[in-house]
Amino acid sequence: MKRTSRDIRTANRYEVLRQIIAESPTSRQELAAATELSLATVATLVGELLDLRMITEVGFEDSAGPARGLVAVNASGGALIGVDIAETYVHVELFDLGLNVLARADEDMGPGESLPEQVVAHVAAAVGSVVAQAGIEGARVLGVGVSVPGQVDRDTGVSEYAPNWDWHDVPLLDLLSEVIAYPLYLDNPLRAGAVAEMWFGAARGRGDTVVVNLGTGVGAGLALGGGLYRGVSNSAGEWGHTTLVLDGRLCRCGNRGCVEAYVGAAGIMLNLRELSPRSPLLHPDDQTATIDALARGVGAYDPVALKVVRETARYIGAGIANLVNVLNPEVVVLSSWVARKLGEPLLHEVREAVARHALRRPLAATEIVLSPIPTDPACLGAATFALEGALQSLGQRTATKRTTLARSRTAPPS
Amino acid sequence: MKRTSRDIRTANRYEVLRQIIAESPTSRQELAAATELSLATVATLVGELLDLRMITEVGFEDSAGPARGLVAVNASGGALIGVDIAETYVHVELFDLGLNVLARADEDMGPGESLPEQVVAHVAAAVGSVVAQAGIEGARVLGVGVSVPGQVDRDTGVSEYAPNWDWHDVPLLDLLSEVIAYPLYLDNPLRAGAVAEMWFGAARGRGDTVVVNLGTGVGAGLALGGGLYRGVSNSAGEWGHTTLVLDGRLCRCGNRGCVEAYVGAAGIMLNLRELSPRSPLLHPDDQTATIDALARGVGAYDPVALKVVRETARYIGAGIANLVNVLNPEVVVLSSWVARKLGEPLLHEVREAVARHALRRPLAATEIVLSPIPTDPACLGAATFALEGALQSLGQRTATKRTTLARSRTAPPS
Repeated sequence: MKRTSRDIRTANRYEVLRQIIAESPTSRQELAAATELSLATVATLVGELLDLRMITEVGFEDSAGPARGLVAVNASGGALIGVDIAETYVHVELFDLGLNVLARADEDMGPGESLPEQVVAHVAAAVGSVVAQAGIEGARVLGVGVSVPGQVDRDTGVSEYAPNWDWHDVPLLDLLSEVIAYPLYLDNPLRAGAVAEMWFGAARGRGDTVVVNLGTGVGAGLALGGGLYRGVSNSAGEWGHTTLVLDGRLCRCGNRGCVEAYVGAAGIMLNLRELSPRSPLLHPDDQTATIDALARGVGAYDPVALKVVRETARYIGAGIANLVNVLNPEVVVLSSWVARKLGEPLLHEVREAVARHALRRPLAATEIVLSPIPTDPACLGAATFALEGALQSLGQRTATKRTTLARSRTAPPS
Repeated sequence: MKRTSRDIRTANRYEVLRQIIAESPTSRQELAAATELSLATVATLVGELLDLRMITEVGFEDSAGPARGLVAVNASGGALIGVDIAETYVHVELFDLGLNVLARADEDMGPGESLPEQVVAHVAAAVGSVVAQAGIEGARVLGVGVSVPGQVDRDTGVSEYAPNWDWHDVPLLDLLSEVIAYPLYLDNPLRAGAVAEMWFGAARGRGDTVVVNLGTGVGAGLALGGGLYRGVSNSAGEWGHTTLVLDGRLCRCGNRGCVEAYVGAAGIMLNLRELSPRSPLLHPDDQTATIDALARGVGAYDPVALKVVRETARYIGAGIANLVNVLNPEVVVLSSWVARKLGEPLLHEVREAVARHALRRPLAATEIVLSPIPTDPACLGAATFALEGALQSLGQRTATKRTTLARSRTAPPS
């Protein structure tokens, strides 16, 4: 887990590309100022990105001083695909290198469709659809990032545990690679969401950040010390399965009193049922419809909806205060579909609840915000993993080429 | 919070010195192998430490190959003082540069002694005592590290909040500097304990580590990504004030259901009282005597003592499982006086309780151990902060000297 100079170099390369994507066109001087790297380092990294055709030279700055070359992301230099496998749907987006969405595809999954083969078929169909919609050649797809809920071994591509489908040790990447020919990168929505916030969202240019995903499952993506924090076996961030109410409600993980049992979509439905068993807001077998009804109810000052959101926020707030007290982050981001649907009213109640539970000093250092990412953060984050992967493998190829070149120059004639 | 090349260099310098302290005498080659740094990097860092007289050349390795120079820590090159201000005592140790204890002093603090001036007077007396006992000149004391419970602003030296004495914004470093002439470094026992484990204990050479302090107050020191994790305002690790039992027992922080309310020494006394109100194990106003009685009781298979330890371990285990699920560490260390006194029986029960609550994948990656540090970890860690501080200020002085020298060499004659 020690950080090496190579890690720093990789992080700096991401940082420069991130900045170019955010602010194209831009000059090396502006990049140095924005990234706090030296001009020499920026010039080297820009040279590498130009070699990889991820960015291009686009003329000179219009200024009085010496002419400064401008670079911009080479949006058409390749395509990236992000796959968000959620409990009830598969959502796929195809991006250009500027991370603009060029095509989208959705597949609904019924409660009966829990076999890996069924899920893989939906993913393959949606990936095929976005490539066809965008009308691009397959060779231009640099990679496919796949986000799947639960615990993931990203090196072996195995879904070790996905609670919603009760998957154990499913070799998902192998199954996917039988039907998808592009390079594949597997991780979970916690890490995808955190990377999306680091590259394009609320964590950009900020210190330690916790991205709290509120959906069917809940968890936290951790961006600590300038990088994604994974833990020793890529399972950090299982905040949803921390105990908040010892001996409390049964959770689908088998434990009792977990945060998820109170604030996951099913937990929120239970909060509603406990408060008002026959509420018309309740759609017994439909999480999305129930959360939508709650959101509308809050907008209309429905007292039951307000009370359910307040009660849910009480649990979320106590759980987030635990993260604030342990990790002392600069930013806490509320993300995923439940947070998006309940929006500002939920945020307001959560902030109040966190303030009641967190210690004064870490509380004063923390800002709590809704995710500013307008599209699906898990898709965007998954595509970013593909971008990072492409950058790494292209970087290695370039390095090999250069070494070979250097060797052919210096080797004695044989 | 971004890591820079300078951070890496500092971390590498600590790593090399740590290794030399652990294994003196040693060669540059052995150091390179142990630290996974290049031989060139090790040679540079060893050169710096030799310049600083923190280590010395001690001859050559007895081997068949080319003669390898050996270096060892220069134990008499200076002295370091560690101060552990606890709720009921002040404990001070004076160390040589090999971090061997040369002198110790203790001051008891009564429940009435809660004013900063009273605490400072005890610290000054104990620091004076260890310097006198060791019979060393004041000039050889490189620094005094001070660990004080609660939340600390280490840059300003202010104790922002110490719950036991209800301190708020006490300028402790200023008060101490009026009576102690050595360089002072302030932090809290969570961070001191973590640094002690990183340099000399269970975290040495291991991945992400959580050091759980079990004493009057409880909390966690975090060694993540190869360094001490502080959070954005040096308040990370307040595990003692995370909610484990929503709406549960009142905690001295004002909140309800905090981990500390169940597993701090006062919480353990309450666990005992709830189980057996008139137990002879209970010493109503004496935490130390009660924990000692429980430890003896467990050794004698006293059913009440066994039940109290099991019940306490149930809370500790659920709380540690939360850390395991969120941080996915390689090692969890149980430290501080309650852990030391209750020892193996507590460890055994805690391991079982963690296994009941943590998710399978992070649980499988985590080892839970008692702190192997035989002395007071907070003292040792505080002295290590003084060592790090001395290394940094000496390093800066050397760098300045070198720059001046370089400048005088290249500057044109004026």
